[in-house]
Amino acid sequence: MLPKSLERTIEALGHLPGVGVRSAERYATYLLKADPEISHQIATALENLHDGVKLCPYTFALIDSTETVSALYDDSDRDKTTVLVVESPLDIVAIERTRAYTGTYHVLGGVISPIDGITPEKLHINELIERVKRDHVDEIIIATNPSVEGESTAVFLNKIITEQYPDSAIKITRLARGLPLGTTLEYADQITLDAALKNRTKL
Amino acid sequence: MLPKSLERTIEALGHLPGVGVRSAERYATYLLKADPEISHQIATALENLHDGVKLCPYTFALIDSTETVSALYDDSDRDKTTVLVVESPLDIVAIERTRAYTGTYHVLGGVISPIDGITPEKLHINELIERVKRDHVDEIIIATNPSVEGESTAVFLNKIITEQYPDSAIKITRLARGLPLGTTLEYADQITLDAALKNRTKL
Repeated sequence: MLPKSLERTIEALGHLPGVGVRSAERYATYLLKADPEISHQIATALENLHDGVKLCPYTFALIDSTETVSALYDDSDRDKTTVLVVESPLDIVAIERTRAYTGTYHVLGGVISPIDGITPEKLHINELIERVKRDHVDEIIIATNPSVEGESTAVFLNKIITEQYPDSAIKITRLARGLPLGTTLEYADQITLDAALKNRTKL
Repeated sequence: MLPKSLERTIEALGHLPGVGVRSAERYATYLLKADPEISHQIATALENLHDGVKLCPYTFALIDSTETVSALYDDSDRDKTTVLVVESPLDIVAIERTRAYTGTYHVLGGVISPIDGITPEKLHINELIERVKRDHVDEIIIATNPSVEGESTAVFLNKIITEQYPDSAIKITRLARGLPLGTTLEYADQITLDAALKNRTKL
């Protein structure tokens, strides 16, 4: 019923996460009405997406394919003795936005989740252990998400690192739990409220 | 902070309607993790989108650029004396899904909305008036959306067509208003409920 090129666009956009037929139709008809330059811009960006990106060999952050090492690792003003461990590359962007952190990062590439077939060997955990020695790391901040898998991955990392370096004074920490800005006590979940109470700070 | 090709993809996808930075980031990182073939498929579809589509010269429905006239107008089993008037090409898809209509369509290309600068001259209204004579139209079903602009466009069309053909017995109708399937009386708005009451049907 619709022109083939439009149907193909709707079908292709339907591959995006969380985009069903209706949203894909909306995107496709919007692009059809809009300046063709916009479609061209998206097309060009997508054609160059994969070739323009690679992983930093030390931190596994996403870097330009023209770079060799992540600037967030290599810059002289980054403190290599502190490593913040995240699940995915975009988490780095969130932390950097705070402008409160000057250490380096390490991207695990996910969290341990046996149901999904993600065992510790599939994550960049060995590389993290190597970095501890090479960079004389004295603090590891585990910043996996506050989910069940994120928590158990944090526990696993704590265990394996202390096992590997039993005699070191390496500090392993976890991002604080508590009430986020803009919430109300009434709607806070029990676990968060429990943590906020236990970790209360002096005014 | 992010690789340039990823930033360009996030920026480009942010042009889609209702897609903010967070959604664009989600789409871009999903595509980066996924098979490059998916990005390529979307890119190819978008590059061919505009060239593959044109408007039917009679109904203004979207047709393949290789076609001359919409099949929904030209097919011998479509009744040209009945014309269903819609705002946009996708509305045709919705009506066709019902399999309850065998007449032809006419796409206005929008609704009259002086605030947005959409005057009757910018819509395909003159072409509709011409079709009435050429195709010996005896019923026009106005299927603009049940919005303020949709209603006033329907009123305008009714007025201008009866003015143009004062002696004809042309029937001008509007899609029924009433309760949609799956709703509850409690949540129905006043105007809909009022229409449902006035247009009640005999069991």
